[in-house]
Amino acid sequence: MKKIGVILHGSGVFDGSEIHEATLSLLAIREAGAVYECYAPDVDQYHVINHTTGEEMPEKRNVLVESARIARGEIKNLMELDLDAVDGLLIPGGFGAAKNLSTWAFDGPAGSVLPQMKEVILAAVRKQVPIASLCVSPVVVAKALEGSEYHPQLTLGTSKQASPYDIAGFSAGIESVGAVAQSASIEEVWVDSTLKIVTAPCYMMETDILGIRANTKQAVERLLELIG
Amino acid sequence: MKKIGVILHGSGVFDGSEIHEATLSLLAIREAGAVYECYAPDVDQYHVINHTTGEEMPEKRNVLVESARIARGEIKNLMELDLDAVDGLLIPGGFGAAKNLSTWAFDGPAGSVLPQMKEVILAAVRKQVPIASLCVSPVVVAKALEGSEYHPQLTLGTSKQASPYDIAGFSAGIESVGAVAQSASIEEVWVDSTLKIVTAPCYMMETDILGIRANTKQAVERLLELIG
Repeated sequence: MKKIGVILHGSGVFDGSEIHEATLSLLAIREAGAVYECYAPDVDQYHVINHTTGEEMPEKRNVLVESARIARGEIKNLMELDLDAVDGLLIPGGFGAAKNLSTWAFDGPAGSVLPQMKEVILAAVRKQVPIASLCVSPVVVAKALEGSEYHPQLTLGTSKQASPYDIAGFSAGIESVGAVAQSASIEEVWVDSTLKIVTAPCYMMETDILGIRANTKQAVERLLELIG
Repeated sequence: MKKIGVILHGSGVFDGSEIHEATLSLLAIREAGAVYECYAPDVDQYHVINHTTGEEMPEKRNVLVESARIARGEIKNLMELDLDAVDGLLIPGGFGAAKNLSTWAFDGPAGSVLPQMKEVILAAVRKQVPIASLCVSPVVVAKALEGSEYHPQLTLGTSKQASPYDIAGFSAGIESVGAVAQSASIEEVWVDSTLKIVTAPCYMMETDILGIRANTKQAVERLLELIG
């Protein structure tokens, strides 16, 4: 049975993993006859956001501990992720990708990427372990491969559909660190078949849980095709 | 379009709403052509559990604020729930039902139920507003209707399938407060068509996200049939 390592980065769209994207990815993995194993880095969250107000809360939370809420406790430290023991990787969206796995939310393309995350992505691409990266998380992939021989084709969505975010800005940002920005609607995913990376816009676009259901399912199906 | 009021009680199985059950209920509601509105009580969580260890953490969290993570910030105070403005209610499982909405986890059938929750459930049954109650949350329905003229038929699962919990104990418990315990497998839901209450075992049984997908979908479909 194919095993997908799902890399979480908190629990909640504004400071962690987007819960609908993460949950519906887990569902799609099982529906496709594969299994998942959840991982998260054992680091502090950048901050904690009150999801009713959008304001910062005077608290500290740990990314691994909070991610465990989505995984029902079945989760491992990202440091334990062995690329020989999984067939593919999946990273859901949510601001955690741009706050906890990288500093893109604050520093844009000039920001940094969590060293253990850079290592996993770079090693996965080198070993041809396929990756699905949802929503805003392709910024982590772009930063991880920056300066390498790899120039991944990635999508953050399209400017032709409504979005709460500046898709053109994100696209220019990932191009400035060596990626090739591609356009995809909420009905589509983008597949870089050379580097074996699937990206899907998900909540980067104006959509609802039905859009996320279809987009995550499509991303997971393409991921499993890349695994072959 | 039919509108379902979804009552959350935190975010995470061990101290709040079970995330898969909640998310997949939201999905099933939209798939069935209805819409949802999320609510949660503005009260402190009973406690905060580290989901990697099962241990209590020395923190305070608010049920409404944490529930907002599942609802992506689109959530209202349970006090604002107007039964004339919704067509049905849904309560996902997770220990939050037995810790934040009631004290069942600590006190069993002798425990108490959050007064605002008792009021909502009792008023919904009186007005014939249908309710779907998943996993362990039927204990809240049982406690809310205790001492009333209503004796709801509710299921917490079956002793004939594997379960991490004492299904017979839970069933005896709800019977002791006036409910009628019914048996249902993870492939089934129980419908009390007189009181218009659907209950579904979900993670009370040994299952995975595929079981939860099917069981929540079935519960939502029956709920919408009861709404008619």
